[in-house]
Amino acid sequence: MQNQLKNDTFIRALLRQPTDYTPIWLMRQAGRYLPEYKATRQRAGNFLNLCKSPNLACEVTIQPVDRFDLDAAILFSDILTIPDAMGLGLYFAENEGPKFEHPLQDEQQINNLQIADMDKLAYVPAAVSEIKKALNNKIPLIGFSGSPFTLACYMVEGGGSKEFSKIKKMLYLRPNLLHKILQTLADSVVNYLNAQIESGVNAVMIFDTWGGTLTPTAYQEFSLNYMQYIIKNLTPNIPSIIFTKGGGLWLENMANINCNAIGVDWTINIAEAKRRIGDKVAIQGNLDPSILLSDAKVVNIQAKKLLDDFYAVDNNANGHIFNLGHGISQFADPENVKELVQTVHNYSKQLRQK
Amino acid sequence: MQNQLKNDTFIRALLRQPTDYTPIWLMRQAGRYLPEYKATRQRAGNFLNLCKSPNLACEVTIQPVDRFDLDAAILFSDILTIPDAMGLGLYFAENEGPKFEHPLQDEQQINNLQIADMDKLAYVPAAVSEIKKALNNKIPLIGFSGSPFTLACYMVEGGGSKEFSKIKKMLYLRPNLLHKILQTLADSVVNYLNAQIESGVNAVMIFDTWGGTLTPTAYQEFSLNYMQYIIKNLTPNIPSIIFTKGGGLWLENMANINCNAIGVDWTINIAEAKRRIGDKVAIQGNLDPSILLSDAKVVNIQAKKLLDDFYAVDNNANGHIFNLGHGISQFADPENVKELVQTVHNYSKQLRQK
Repeated sequence: MQNQLKNDTFIRALLRQPTDYTPIWLMRQAGRYLPEYKATRQRAGNFLNLCKSPNLACEVTIQPVDRFDLDAAILFSDILTIPDAMGLGLYFAENEGPKFEHPLQDEQQINNLQIADMDKLAYVPAAVSEIKKALNNKIPLIGFSGSPFTLACYMVEGGGSKEFSKIKKMLYLRPNLLHKILQTLADSVVNYLNAQIESGVNAVMIFDTWGGTLTPTAYQEFSLNYMQYIIKNLTPNIPSIIFTKGGGLWLENMANINCNAIGVDWTINIAEAKRRIGDKVAIQGNLDPSILLSDAKVVNIQAKKLLDDFYAVDNNANGHIFNLGHGISQFADPENVKELVQTVHNYSKQLRQK
Repeated sequence: MQNQLKNDTFIRALLRQPTDYTPIWLMRQAGRYLPEYKATRQRAGNFLNLCKSPNLACEVTIQPVDRFDLDAAILFSDILTIPDAMGLGLYFAENEGPKFEHPLQDEQQINNLQIADMDKLAYVPAAVSEIKKALNNKIPLIGFSGSPFTLACYMVEGGGSKEFSKIKKMLYLRPNLLHKILQTLADSVVNYLNAQIESGVNAVMIFDTWGGTLTPTAYQEFSLNYMQYIIKNLTPNIPSIIFTKGGGLWLENMANINCNAIGVDWTINIAEAKRRIGDKVAIQGNLDPSILLSDAKVVNIQAKKLLDDFYAVDNNANGHIFNLGHGISQFADPENVKELVQTVHNYSKQLRQK
């Protein structure tokens, strides 16, 4: 499969093989900063329709690929499709982020929780098939899921949260109840990612948005262990990336679960991350997303600085996938994205010729 | 001043002198989890009245000290008193956190920004004097301020924020404009803390709630440097603590600015923090505040574990001030706080006798 790709730079970097330049893609690259995305979303009526229509999901996935010289596409979908399929009733309140009609708040409800029915998620592999067709092997397609802990945060809290009081209380007071939720989610994520792989994604990524709110021991027990379980049960030979926002203190542990790459946010210098991880896994990251709120000149300088930093530790410059340290802001200027992609490609080529 | 204290365990720990047990106080210990606090706040009419009345501020400062065997009191005040005195018009919208009527959003306004008039902040040293009288040297009193960067976040955004888009855009596009704000704030904080010291606080703490949202280089330039400036300009011989939430990757730099102690949040193991910092400064922290949402048994186990972890690296067990890794939750059970304080005192005495 990978061999048919016209541009396999991203996959090679994931596997820490030599590449001619540093590949780049951006978390949330199909999104509100693009006027064409907003137009499609308007046509869809609402966000969930957009996610659930393979046709429209394909359209927005391809938009940034058409506009910029990106080295990977990522499936457009929502992080909460699995709990939605489990019957929690996902909805989006105006300017408020995701919410659930039926959050997980009593023991019986938790004990009755079943692995997500993949039939209810059929729109996701269907979107993958459409996107693969549209990409025509130009660049790889990344599939993704939220991590079990991150999904559980939304499911128990009933939406986003500042302090995560409900799930944290459960974690300390009823750890086995939380483990029951997490194992059911982990098994669902395995099925979900394997269905995406079967439909043609070339790599998968697990987004652990909230694992960074835990203590080191709780992170290992309630988040990382379940990501390890998922990686172990994926269809063999598909490269994987895990990303824990705020996980900079735990990189060594993250690198230890047999994933191919770890994503890092912008609170750690990429050179320090590389020094700590060595050649164990590839590293994805880690430009501060707010740099895209500035101008082309600043973007150029900051992107070069990041490439210099990585190169100073590893003058092969391999095993680095350039990305932001978190999702792109809706206020980012598309012209800055263009400058970023060009700078990363051109300057990383120059560095390799040094 | 310090010599007159009946219980100076907290001050001795700050200075890394031997103590009979590990002292404990809790960030936001005067707060909504206490029914007596809620009663006083109701009498005050609103939160700002409570902060601005030395009498009521004293009352709520003493409440947790009366209830629990704490080793320090902390001045009750709001983090945003300085920008309020600068004329930004602080107010609290129902369930929305702090807001400013006149956020800093244009260049002229920023160039006109003046150091806070201490006359407008006179209610703060007045509260300190009242509290000192009420404490009668039973335990030390901690004064505090927000860090310049944290204050600037609220001032530029106009309130709390998820992504801090406005201040981050300024940081990358107009760094000198942000430096102008930060220097004005740093000079204001120096005056503010020195006025608190003159009125009798026994130690000061700088809360850097949002420095952890920066890159390592931006943290040094836009947050840590200004905290260093403040510490350098404080009345001599008053111990100081700095706390950056999410600063676990930067402990070595934080320990390098001549403060006496650094506060750490719960995302780093206390033993790892101690190993990295060595004997350079004392360490304050770092129980996950959500542990206080559980029950007495869990609190007891987790508090002992934290003390064991510290003791494993330093079997003098000195230079540790027990605290939460962030402010106490409004949902914390006061009985759990009682259990925590007792456990820390008793178990740390036992460890010292080993």
